[in-house]
Parts: sequence; structure tokens; C-alpha cells
Amino acid sequence: ALSTNLTKKKMRAKLEGDQRNDTLKQLDTSGWKLVDDRDALSKTFLFKDFNQAFGFMTRVALLAEKLDHHPEWFNVYNKVQVTLSTHDLNGLSTYDAQMAQFMDQCASGTKENNK
Amino acid sequence: ALSTNLTKKKMRAKLEGDQRNDTLKQLDTSGWKLVDDRDALSKTFLFKDFNQAFGFMTRVALLAEKLDHHPEWFNVYNKVQVTLSTHDLNGLSTYDAQMAQFMDQCASGTKENNK
Amino acid sequence: ALSTNLTKKKMRAKLEGDQRNDTLKQLDTSGWKLVDDRDALSKTFLFKDFNQAFGFMTRVALLAEKLDHHPEWFNVYNKVQVTLSTHDLNGLSTYDAQMAQFMDQCASGTKENNK
Amino acid sequence: ALSTNLTKKKMRAKLEGDQRNDTLKQLDTSGWKLVDDRDALSKTFLFKDFNQAFGFMTRVALLAEKLDHHPEWFNVYNKVQVTLSTHDLNGLSTYDAQMAQFMDQCASGTKENNK
Repeated sequence: ALSTNLTKKKMRAKLEGDQRNDTLKQLDTSGWKLVDDRDALSKTFLFKDFNQAFGFMTRVALLAEKLDHHPEWFNVYNKVQVTLSTHDLNGLSTYDAQMAQFMDQCASGTKENNK
Repeated sequence: ALSTNLTKKKMRAKLEGDQRNDTLKQLDTSGWKLVDDRDALSKTFLFKDFNQAFGFMTRVALLAEKLDHHPEWFNVYNKVQVTLSTHDLNGLSTYDAQMAQFMDQCASGTKENNK
Repeated sequence: ALSTNLTKKKMRAKLEGDQRNDTLKQLDTSGWKLVDDRDALSKTFLFKDFNQAFGFMTRVALLAEKLDHHPEWFNVYNKVQVTLSTHDLNGLSTYDAQMAQFMDQCASGTKENNK
Repeated sequence: ALSTNLTKKKMRAKLEGDQRNDTLKQLDTSGWKLVDDRDALSKTFLFKDFNQAFGFMTRVALLAEKLDHHPEWFNVYNKVQVTLSTHDLNGLSTYDAQMAQFMDQCASGTKENNK
């Protein structure tokens, strides 16, 4: 149990140096961009309808609550605009990367419905 | 507006004759089976985890509320057992078919995440 | 069925004249304010935590999908900022009033947990 | 961090002796009953409609995912039947008590809407 906890602790580390560069480069390819005025990542997800958008939001909400790491997000109908940052670390953390990757995965699955 | 309403009305019709046979045959191929003791369809969905299962349930809940046609369902962790029937028509209706198809579509998209 | 449909049709009417004034006056007392740049109502809901905020959003989402009338909303942790307007009527409608009243009712119930 | 983790660990302990008796007595007053065939607690929640029921389920789902402790539950329209137990401890734990108390609190708030 201890090692698990230490590992989890380690997972929530500020992104710095090469790890930050590699992570941002990878997330950039799926549309996550740094915002202008602070150290945060943002992406806009477009779904077919509100049903898909809110189903996506519910899955993200469940992970957010598990990690105790919550997004800033705006929704109208099929659109979800997300901004991620780690306030108490004053920048981007591994949790932001985990959330971003999870959202990409969820959105990708959800959109399978459109085919 | 009137014709739309009549159409919607028509959509919620009891399944009978060939339409019933064809619909049940099609739904049978994706795992929907008639239950023993009343005229209802049932299927068990298995997901990777609770996150997937409850995301699925939320999408189904949104459609159920839109149609005012609600499932009977049991959930534990990654498992969702669904039973569909139309109480006031005393059997299966086009709404049950619509719900069943929607659930198959949602579950299929959600499981894309597993790959 | 017909009268119900006509009633429902009537429910989604643009707010005008005395009905608009009375509705806006009533909603103003619970914190709904007209926004500056277009004909829309806005309110910020504050909850104890994300759990309360997202539970509230789910209930609102279910009504929104039922009415096919969706809010613009922004959430971060315990805060939900909502803007309501009826795009195709180019202003505020009875649906906006219904959504606003429902949100007030939901938020009020949710906050009972804080006591 | 360490002490927090140990505390959390401690929170998920099997209910035994006086702690078990006191907890069960208290939960019994709000309707939680031991089931017949295994060491588990069960309660049926009745809401006004599906909107209330599923809003409740979403709040419970968020806590369940946070604790990694999930209920067995059955829902149809306004009814939610819940069974709680801790499989790997082979009985009831402090997590079951925490979930039960949270559900009572959520349901109580939700039903304020009925007044």
C-alpha cells in the first residue's frame, strides 16, 4: 500500500524539462494548445450532439473526482471547451497530461458512434 | 408541427407481426433476448470499468428522459443489465427497439477505448 | 394528444410584454440578470464542491435534453455559470424561464446537504 | 502525505464489535437493513421522478469512483434499490457506512424539491 501511495504521489508532479517538452509535443498533435495568459492547456471538443457531449463530460467528471483534479470547461450543445492547469503547482502537472489523454481517448470512442 | 407530433406518436407503436419478428431477429444478433416471464427484452453489457459503465448509463439516461421511456437496469462496477418493455402497451414497442439500438451503439463506441 | 401538443407548443413562446416583465422581475430576485450584449439571462451557482456541482449539472442536462433546449455553461470545481437564451426566437422564451426556475429548485435542494 | 494515506487506509476497515453495532443501529433508523443471504446492507430510495433518481445516482457514482467502492444498484424510473458490501473484506466496512450516510444526505437534499 505504501509504495502505491508513493507512486500516486509521484504521478502528480509538475511537468518540467524534457518530460514537459515531450508531453506537450505529443498533446499538441491531438489539438491541445498552450493558452496565452498563463501556463495551461486548452482544447475544444466537438461532438455530434448534446448526448455525446454530456456523456463525455460525465466520464471526465468521474476521473476528475477520482484524481481530485478538476477541469475548467465550457459547454454549449455539442461543444466542450476544456482548460487544464494545476493551480497549486503554478503550472502544468502529470495530472493535466493524464486528464488530457483520457479526454482524447473518451472523445475518440464516443465519436465512433458517428460512423 | 402537427405532422411531427403524429409522426412521433406513430413512432411509439406496439411491435407486432413482421415488424416485431424482424426487429427481434436483428436485436437477437447483438445479444438482446426475450425474458421468460413477460414480454420484455434483456441484455447484459460488460465494460472495462465503472467509468465506462456509468458514462454509458448517462447517455442512455439522457435518451430515456427525452423519450419519456425508461429502462429497468442493474449495475455493479463494470456490468449493466438492462430490461426493456413498454408497460402501458403491455409488450414491446418501437421505443424499446430504439433504446436497444442506441445502447448497442453507445456501448460499441465506449469500448473503442479498450483497444 | 393534440391539446397536449398544442400546449407544449405554446409553452415555448418568446417572452414579451407583461409576461416578460413579470418573469424577469421574479427571476431577478433569485439572481438571474440580463447580460449586456444580447438578450440572455445569466446566473452563477456556487456549491460546496464538485460533487454537488456536477450532480446539479446532470439534473439540468436531463431537462435540457427533454426540452431540446440547452444552456451555455461554464464549470470549474464548485462553480457553475449559466447563460440562457433562445437562439431561434432571437431572445428569451418560456423555456428559458422554465430552465431557470428548475435550476433554482435543484440548487436549493442540493444545498440542503450543506446544513 | 504519509499520515493521510494511513488515515485513509484506516478509514476502510471492516466494521466489527461495538463500532459495527452502533453503525448498523444508526443506519437502521434511516431504512438500511441487513440482507438475508450475506453480510450486506440494502435500502430502497423513492424519488419524484427519473430526473431526481438519476441526479442522485450521479452524485453517488462520483463518490463511489473517488473511494473505489461501488454499489450494487437497480433503478427503474423513480426507484433506486441499493446494496452495499465490501467484497474483499468479506463483510461490511467503514466505506459502506460512509456511502450509506452520503446517499441519505443526497436523497434528503434532492427531495427538498418536492416540497
